[in-house]
Amino acid sequence: MIDSYSGASKKAGMPPGSLIHIGNVQEEDSRISVIDYGRDDLEEPVVETVEELLKFREKESITWVCLEGLKEVEIVELIGQYFDIHPLVLEDILNTHQRPKFEEYDDYLYIVLKGLSLKPDENSDHGGFSVIYEQISILVLEDFVFTFKEKKDELFLPLIQRIRTSNGRVRSMGPDYLAYAILDSIVDQNFVLLDSMDESIDAIEEELLTNPTADTLIGIQRLKRELIDVRRSVAPLRELLSSILRSDTKLIGEKTQIYFRDVYDHVLRITESTDSYRDMLASLLDIYVSSVSNKMNEIMKLLTVFASIFIPLSFIAGIYGMNFENMPELKWQWGYPAIWGVFIALPTVLLIYFKKKKWL
Amino acid sequence: MIDSYSGASKKAGMPPGSLIHIGNVQEEDSRISVIDYGRDDLEEPVVETVEELLKFREKESITWVCLEGLKEVEIVELIGQYFDIHPLVLEDILNTHQRPKFEEYDDYLYIVLKGLSLKPDENSDHGGFSVIYEQISILVLEDFVFTFKEKKDELFLPLIQRIRTSNGRVRSMGPDYLAYAILDSIVDQNFVLLDSMDESIDAIEEELLTNPTADTLIGIQRLKRELIDVRRSVAPLRELLSSILRSDTKLIGEKTQIYFRDVYDHVLRITESTDSYRDMLASLLDIYVSSVSNKMNEIMKLLTVFASIFIPLSFIAGIYGMNFENMPELKWQWGYPAIWGVFIALPTVLLIYFKKKKWL
Amino acid sequence: MIDSYSGASKKAGMPPGSLIHIGNVQEEDSRISVIDYGRDDLEEPVVETVEELLKFREKESITWVCLEGLKEVEIVELIGQYFDIHPLVLEDILNTHQRPKFEEYDDYLYIVLKGLSLKPDENSDHGGFSVIYEQISILVLEDFVFTFKEKKDELFLPLIQRIRTSNGRVRSMGPDYLAYAILDSIVDQNFVLLDSMDESIDAIEEELLTNPTADTLIGIQRLKRELIDVRRSVAPLRELLSSILRSDTKLIGEKTQIYFRDVYDHVLRITESTDSYRDMLASLLDIYVSSVSNKMNEIMKLLTVFASIFIPLSFIAGIYGMNFENMPELKWQWGYPAIWGVFIALPTVLLIYFKKKKWL
Amino acid sequence: MIDSYSGASKKAGMPPGSLIHIGNVQEEDSRISVIDYGRDDLEEPVVETVEELLKFREKESITWVCLEGLKEVEIVELIGQYFDIHPLVLEDILNTHQRPKFEEYDDYLYIVLKGLSLKPDENSDHGGFSVIYEQISILVLEDFVFTFKEKKDELFLPLIQRIRTSNGRVRSMGPDYLAYAILDSIVDQNFVLLDSMDESIDAIEEELLTNPTADTLIGIQRLKRELIDVRRSVAPLRELLSSILRSDTKLIGEKTQIYFRDVYDHVLRITESTDSYRDMLASLLDIYVSSVSNKMNEIMKLLTVFASIFIPLSFIAGIYGMNFENMPELKWQWGYPAIWGVFIALPTVLLIYFKKKKWL
Amino acid sequence: MIDSYSGASKKAGMPPGSLIHIGNVQEEDSRISVIDYGRDDLEEPVVETVEELLKFREKESITWVCLEGLKEVEIVELIGQYFDIHPLVLEDILNTHQRPKFEEYDDYLYIVLKGLSLKPDENSDHGGFSVIYEQISILVLEDFVFTFKEKKDELFLPLIQRIRTSNGRVRSMGPDYLAYAILDSIVDQNFVLLDSMDESIDAIEEELLTNPTADTLIGIQRLKRELIDVRRSVAPLRELLSSILRSDTKLIGEKTQIYFRDVYDHVLRITESTDSYRDMLASLLDIYVSSVSNKMNEIMKLLTVFASIFIPLSFIAGIYGMNFENMPELKWQWGYPAIWGVFIALPTVLLIYFKKKKWL
Repeated sequence: MIDSYSGASKKAGMPPGSLIHIGNVQEEDSRISVIDYGRDDLEEPVVETVEELLKFREKESITWVCLEGLKEVEIVELIGQYFDIHPLVLEDILNTHQRPKFEEYDDYLYIVLKGLSLKPDENSDHGGFSVIYEQISILVLEDFVFTFKEKKDELFLPLIQRIRTSNGRVRSMGPDYLAYAILDSIVDQNFVLLDSMDESIDAIEEELLTNPTADTLIGIQRLKRELIDVRRSVAPLRELLSSILRSDTKLIGEKTQIYFRDVYDHVLRITESTDSYRDMLASLLDIYVSSVSNKMNEIMKLLTVFASIFIPLSFIAGIYGMNFENMPELKWQWGYPAIWGVFIALPTVLLIYFKKKKWL
Repeated sequence: MIDSYSGASKKAGMPPGSLIHIGNVQEEDSRISVIDYGRDDLEEPVVETVEELLKFREKESITWVCLEGLKEVEIVELIGQYFDIHPLVLEDILNTHQRPKFEEYDDYLYIVLKGLSLKPDENSDHGGFSVIYEQISILVLEDFVFTFKEKKDELFLPLIQRIRTSNGRVRSMGPDYLAYAILDSIVDQNFVLLDSMDESIDAIEEELLTNPTADTLIGIQRLKRELIDVRRSVAPLRELLSSILRSDTKLIGEKTQIYFRDVYDHVLRITESTDSYRDMLASLLDIYVSSVSNKMNEIMKLLTVFASIFIPLSFIAGIYGMNFENMPELKWQWGYPAIWGVFIALPTVLLIYFKKKKWL
Repeated sequence: MIDSYSGASKKAGMPPGSLIHIGNVQEEDSRISVIDYGRDDLEEPVVETVEELLKFREKESITWVCLEGLKEVEIVELIGQYFDIHPLVLEDILNTHQRPKFEEYDDYLYIVLKGLSLKPDENSDHGGFSVIYEQISILVLEDFVFTFKEKKDELFLPLIQRIRTSNGRVRSMGPDYLAYAILDSIVDQNFVLLDSMDESIDAIEEELLTNPTADTLIGIQRLKRELIDVRRSVAPLRELLSSILRSDTKLIGEKTQIYFRDVYDHVLRITESTDSYRDMLASLLDIYVSSVSNKMNEIMKLLTVFASIFIPLSFIAGIYGMNFENMPELKWQWGYPAIWGVFIALPTVLLIYFKKKKWL
Repeated sequence: MIDSYSGASKKAGMPPGSLIHIGNVQEEDSRISVIDYGRDDLEEPVVETVEELLKFREKESITWVCLEGLKEVEIVELIGQYFDIHPLVLEDILNTHQRPKFEEYDDYLYIVLKGLSLKPDENSDHGGFSVIYEQISILVLEDFVFTFKEKKDELFLPLIQRIRTSNGRVRSMGPDYLAYAILDSIVDQNFVLLDSMDESIDAIEEELLTNPTADTLIGIQRLKRELIDVRRSVAPLRELLSSILRSDTKLIGEKTQIYFRDVYDHVLRITESTDSYRDMLASLLDIYVSSVSNKMNEIMKLLTVFASIFIPLSFIAGIYGMNFENMPELKWQWGYPAIWGVFIALPTVLLIYFKKKKWL
Repeated sequence: MIDSYSGASKKAGMPPGSLIHIGNVQEEDSRISVIDYGRDDLEEPVVETVEELLKFREKESITWVCLEGLKEVEIVELIGQYFDIHPLVLEDILNTHQRPKFEEYDDYLYIVLKGLSLKPDENSDHGGFSVIYEQISILVLEDFVFTFKEKKDELFLPLIQRIRTSNGRVRSMGPDYLAYAILDSIVDQNFVLLDSMDESIDAIEEELLTNPTADTLIGIQRLKRELIDVRRSVAPLRELLSSILRSDTKLIGEKTQIYFRDVYDHVLRITESTDSYRDMLASLLDIYVSSVSNKMNEIMKLLTVFASIFIPLSFIAGIYGMNFENMPELKWQWGYPAIWGVFIALPTVLLIYFKKKKWL
């Protein structure tokens, strides 16, 4: 589940703007990592306190501060103080039930969205998996980019590598391009998810058309719920990116706009894919229901064939099992063979009839 | 039910603008409570008559008047007279079947919406509950904020506490911020509801996949109706808040806009959640139907297996129960053991066949 | 049915603008009633011919002319001539298959919509009813308001009473307010309908969860069709009223705008209610289908329990009914008691099995 | 089927703008008919070649040229040359798979839409019918109106009659009014179709609630497909007419606009009707499925009642048909009557049980 | 499947703008073909390297460069360098998972969409087929048009023929018209697909109403998935073409706009067709489910008729097979004929009853 609200509701009675971390992800210690780079130089200082960041304000270079783990609220609070961030933004960073959105302030931009990672599900047959969501906030200032993540993971590693090796475009462009690159890393994770969805749907379809069981139904239901969650984290991205594109903030250069348009295209593709998965799952459920009906039909046909052949025969045998005194047939010499004739003829006729009705 | 219209239709033939209280909630006596505060001072006078409110008009401070219980129509009427409120607004305050909306007048703003509270449902198994709706009207004047509630409850208590303790932002800001804080309290109640929905849906899903009964069906249906009602009270909030954001009234300061945007985000999250609950419930019903079909299949399989094994056997036994005179098999020494051979062989063959068809 | 088009298609080959009355409602004689009022005086003259209306044109007062029954086409034609109404409007007044709409002309406004009244349905169990639709046209001129109704009824009586007793707001305001009051009367009739819908839906739901029958299905279907018709007459009202609100005609004063906004709110509420009724009915049908399946399951379980217990027993009895000569069991002293042991043990085992499967 | 595309795809590889007639309707010879009229005079010359039309260009009067049958491509080509029509328009006139649309050129307007006629379906029971579609193109020039039809029929006859008798409005107005009148004739044909739909739906509903058969299902399916086709030809009309209304071409006079608005209203009514028919059909199918389930329930109940009464009885009879030597009951004097007591008591008990379960 | 994303996700961790070919289509060698033409001359030079293209830059003529096969990434890279194409565009050309889109740059236009071809499916009965998708990119420069295709095929052959024979419009117009002609060729391929869909749907419907089998279900499901894919490649075309029409780039002349509008109309028709196919397939599945239920009903009726006739008869026979000593009926002379009377009368009565219930 992306959002159990168990946290959100706890806060219902609290004053707005109070800085408290609300989240589901198991708490980890916070870790600050900093990378400061210009076109020609790059520094990765070890930073323990927020104050140490202030010295990078004087430098012309771009400083990317990444905070992983939101338990230590005071770090976020201090960043808010030193860099003059609006209290509501700080609150949103800490409350991890945010809807993905883009907000434009005078001196900075605030982007919040869901990063996701896949965990294979061991209990499931058809390539099942579960998705873990993590809220990621991005603050873009004139020379700084802050990212706030709930968990420590390797999500940004490839991007950091690209910054380290000075070749990439990223070194020669501004913090807007860095923000783009970060956004791109997060959004592109969705393609991995889509791949898994794809495989799961194919596996289920295969199973459906060959041997549908009650487990197939559970599989469809699981995917459906997963998809509802995914859509909730993905759908607002479209609006988020089109706000960025429409925005006329001076913090995003004209040259970088085109890159955000590229992310926008990715988001459109992801949205359309989730839409078609939704259609496919709906269609799979329809097929499932039909398959079950079909199977029932088959069962009923067999029952009917058996019953309508043997019940009349039993009745006939029953007739000549009666103990009436004068039952002349019983004494006829050919009575017994004759009755065997009936026992053979009747089923034959019925079988031909069922054959003609295509029941066999 | 949020709206039985039993009241609304009673008024069908009446002149527009006639002040009559129309509502479902059991009537209670009206109670006026007043809190008057500035940055540094705070007063909570006991007020019995509307006239006593007039003296606060001279003061610079912000006066929040909260009327709980709408039975005494004349109170609302007097407030309307003294503060020059349009008769249609007074009518809307008293008729508790309003659609949530925001209206902008020259000298005041009118906001009406539904507050809700949860009452656990004792008869229900899966964490059932029922929602109680209450219409809350907010009038924002230059130095006054009026709230009109149908019932006496503790909804605003946390907010009042925050005003009393002078620390919060609320003391240092204007009536627009107070209006925001009130709106925020009401809207955030919805998260508690979403939590309960969430739990109920999870409980039902659990039940569905293990042991679906007719009660599960009733549970789904109850949640569905509840959700239809919730959506009706929540859906117009989106429009309400976007009208506030788009409005250029001077009664809402630029600094407060951002707070309303925050409530808007909450409303979006709530709306999206109800949408996904709707999807989930639809999907649960699908699963229910499929489960029932599945179960039927299982039952039919058992019946078919039993019937198709024993009906032919009975027939065979019936044959040798016939009383024909010349039935040579009856006199064969190995006739009886042979027939037992058939009695054992036939079911074995059929069982193998059903096994191969995966019916067993 | 709101619109059988049996009339509409008859006109297919006719020249546009030909004045012919087309309608379903059984024809009645036309009746003209006039009420002419100013702030201080009121007159209700008996009017027989259209010419008699002309003298009110000189007067400053507001004249409301209500024509009930559209059979006498020439009355409408004459009104058209004397008051210079566009032929297409006259045609629309007479052809009672119009879609609700608002049209703005230079010297007058034309509003057409459906009035409705309820007739309790005697054949139905669950508070059934049928809705009777009537087309009502409103022409708003500078000093005149015309209403054209298909039938004679008491719909406008409460409004007329309010005009007669000079207290109401209506006497002190212009023809635009009168138009509003008329519109309001017609729209508010819908709340009565919604009440009935509400009751019917509750009755059906009650029946569904206790004892669904084929009649319940017919009840749902009836309500569904009724709702489709209601939606067709209600849905365009939203657009109608928003056109009035957006219109900048000088025939509707600024002071009256707010009253139309009030009707607009009512229309929104009605539309949303019909939407949720639609959802509820869809959901009731789902429940119905599931209930029927559930019931079938119960039936099949019983059959299966009976069959799988007694069919094997019958077979065993059949075995010892065979007439083989050497069936040693038959001669054992304890054979018969032993077989009774089987007859008791087998069902016991099966019953325990079914109990464990929760079929009993 | 409105569009089998069998033609459309044939053209896939061809150069755009090549004039080839593509259509499904069986080919007929082309027929040109001309009517040339002014306020006071009217002429209906027999025209064999396109060149003969040129002389009407000098006259002030309005000339309506109607070409029926599109086989002779060169006629359209010549009209294109002489009256300077864009090749793509000519192509669209000849390719009868066009989507209804309105195009505005400097010197002329191009309207293309589907005319339809009904053919009663003899095989069908419930007032079945099939719809025949025909593409009609309208070119409106300054003094000319061209119509291109696929088939020869009487569609425009009533309109022509109105032109011939000089009374109608049509004679005193311009080519724009003629275009309106033509459009109106075509659109109003839809009401006839809606009438038939209405009757068919009513017939099917009647059948459904009394005696649903497999044919009812086929009837619903036929109507559904018909409706899908109708919607495809009707839905774009809305856009078509609103483009006409929004257009500021000088070829449509201000006075005629209001008439097009009238057609627009008709189109809205038609669209809404098809929408509600769609809803009704969906609902009929739901009812069908439920009815079938209901019927199955009834069948199963009967089977279960029979089986659960007689199977145990048979077993009891079977017991005393066994040939054990010491079965004391067989020799009791009251054994046989006693067993009859059981044979009567057991069914009675079961019948009371089933009665209580409301199965009988 | 149009998009398995197996490639897309591989790229998730890579720097944006890295030129790597990502695609599903089996790799083929690249082939460059060039056609250079003006109004009067035409040249089809054999080109091996990108550098050879540069000489055409000086010429006034239009040069169409078609690259088939995207394996040799360096060709695209070189074209990008020489003609100053943005790296993101090059990336999109090579990554064949693009969403159809139109992008406007200062000096060139970029169009990317899916071409499709049909491959008849040998395993399928009802005219089955599978669709092969191929990404086609179009770059429109001032004097150049580039097309990039994944595969070598004959798609553009008819267009090339039209260019070779100097008659067509294409020779006398600019690169914008060429771009239109290319787009038109690709879009019109869809009509072939629609034809096949049409046939498949008709075949399935035929089968459904005569003899639905489990294969029919698979057929419906296959078509549904195919349609989901088709819609994903077709739906964005609408937006693509309306962006082209709204664009005010100087690279598309006013005279050519009308041709793009024609393609837009085609796209609308295709979109509407896929929409109605979707409706039809949904409706076919409904019919299938109903048919299966109907068939089950028939089966159950037969079973019930057989069972309810013969089970009571067997019981009666069983009675007189009992071995009680004093069963007077057994010794009556007319006992046996009397019992035959019962054996004949009982079924007759039941058959009449079933006949009356319309079960036979």
